[in-house]
Amino acid sequence: MAGEFDFIDWIRRQQRTSEIVQVPAGDDLAVLKWNWPGRESDLLLVGVDQVLDGVHFDSAIHSPRAIGRKVMNRNLSDCAAMACVPVAALVSAALPRGQDIEHARELYLGIKEAADAFNCAIVGGETGSWKGQLVVTVTILGGADGIPPVKRGGAVAGEHIYVTGPLGGSLLLDRHMNFVPRIIEARRLASGNRIGGMIDLSDGLSRDLRQICTESRVGAIIQADLIPIHDDIMKARRDERAPLEHALHDGEDYELLFTTAEPVVGVECHRIGHTTDDPGIWLDRGGQLEPLEPKGWEHPL
Amino acid sequence: MAGEFDFIDWIRRQQRTSEIVQVPAGDDLAVLKWNWPGRESDLLLVGVDQVLDGVHFDSAIHSPRAIGRKVMNRNLSDCAAMACVPVAALVSAALPRGQDIEHARELYLGIKEAADAFNCAIVGGETGSWKGQLVVTVTILGGADGIPPVKRGGAVAGEHIYVTGPLGGSLLLDRHMNFVPRIIEARRLASGNRIGGMIDLSDGLSRDLRQICTESRVGAIIQADLIPIHDDIMKARRDERAPLEHALHDGEDYELLFTTAEPVVGVECHRIGHTTDDPGIWLDRGGQLEPLEPKGWEHPL
Repeated sequence: MAGEFDFIDWIRRQQRTSEIVQVPAGDDLAVLKWNWPGRESDLLLVGVDQVLDGVHFDSAIHSPRAIGRKVMNRNLSDCAAMACVPVAALVSAALPRGQDIEHARELYLGIKEAADAFNCAIVGGETGSWKGQLVVTVTILGGADGIPPVKRGGAVAGEHIYVTGPLGGSLLLDRHMNFVPRIIEARRLASGNRIGGMIDLSDGLSRDLRQICTESRVGAIIQADLIPIHDDIMKARRDERAPLEHALHDGEDYELLFTTAEPVVGVECHRIGHTTDDPGIWLDRGGQLEPLEPKGWEHPL
Repeated sequence: MAGEFDFIDWIRRQQRTSEIVQVPAGDDLAVLKWNWPGRESDLLLVGVDQVLDGVHFDSAIHSPRAIGRKVMNRNLSDCAAMACVPVAALVSAALPRGQDIEHARELYLGIKEAADAFNCAIVGGETGSWKGQLVVTVTILGGADGIPPVKRGGAVAGEHIYVTGPLGGSLLLDRHMNFVPRIIEARRLASGNRIGGMIDLSDGLSRDLRQICTESRVGAIIQADLIPIHDDIMKARRDERAPLEHALHDGEDYELLFTTAEPVVGVECHRIGHTTDDPGIWLDRGGQLEPLEPKGWEHPL
């Protein structure tokens, strides 16, 4: 049976050289040259995100390649939310003991596929096997590269609220396993517009909007009839919930939710409401205001 | 039942401010000011390490505080192995569903305790709960801070081989749960001596020495009678294996193993052998050379 060290050797052979990677994965730590030529690089952005079998994917249904892509794309989506450029990533996996090494390789190739699409180098990682189920954790490092990071807390009252695409039904037809992180859109948005607050929609519009409002100390009114509804909801027709309910609460859309004072230039997106001085968060259904309660994705502890 | 967001809020309240943290945990990514004043900071060192229930600890025996300390200390030990200064860390935890939130807090406090000891800021993280057992993953960011990173592959033939402390029996009396990463020693070593190759002893002397030799394309002869044996082996007296076998293969010592051409200045340590042109790795038992096979810790996949 192949051991951890063989697998690590295999991973090392997959690595592309990069001007920023001075010591690649395989030593105790990777060494990155952070002030690489031609880039403004005094700001380092960093985050971590894990996916768990039975929570974020189902290993009985989803291929290891798709699982790998998802965890990397979730991290890249966090880069989009801050409008930064992904630069490097580290991968850590807890693999079910006794599983084929081909499974681990496919997982890694899915991660690499998603990373390569945005020129993000995989610079380190670790694998262990255990009696439990699959856990994959990715750490992402990004650079500001000339655009100040866009925070959740930068919204002010009186701004428009936008989303970059239709919402809802991400779990119905497995769109949550195969989405494109909105990095290109985020960079365009933040270079051509003054963006107030921004977040990627992972926990659902109702919950993620609350994050922007709380951090920014503003309220919001969302127009029910302006929310773009994703086709997947009608295509799947799996439950009795209204399409709007899906769009408000499902989560895992991985579209960007942001605020800005002026009409958006350079990126196709949908205006869905506006921010207010009053701290409440409301849904306007044809003139009737009702509180928009967060019902999105929160893992109970 | 407390939710993920309450726990994240609690974590945010634990954070210390730091001159390098521009946006702390809680946004999509943390933002670090990497060129902070008074430090040479063009090199970023980064690594990730996870601990798994039943592999690196046993949640039925070990406290969450001790588990947290261990995972952070393992990452700090990787910093020691490269002679860098730990700067920031990110934590990701997969928590068993239904467990008391106090458990998660204790885990975090253990992590923070170990990080604080080396002035390392916790700048981000993520928690999720699932039906599986505890997994904790820590990503560490370090700075070179005036000392070029010491790699595994820098040893040359004819150097002395040293360890910073006695080896073996780390699992017998739970020393592996409570050790001090050799960061201070590493910084002193690398600033006062020309170090060839260096690694921290996590997988066992026989296996980690092989890493240095392979990366450096040298061989080694270790003197059996020079290897410092840890007291824990005699104190525990749990098995029939010879103390030397423990010292060679047990792993999780978290002492530094390194090579250098001259006698070491400024740090107490033990010379145990020397590197050779010939690529073999040998154990010298009173003049008799026998191959030193790696029997240390390798997780089968």
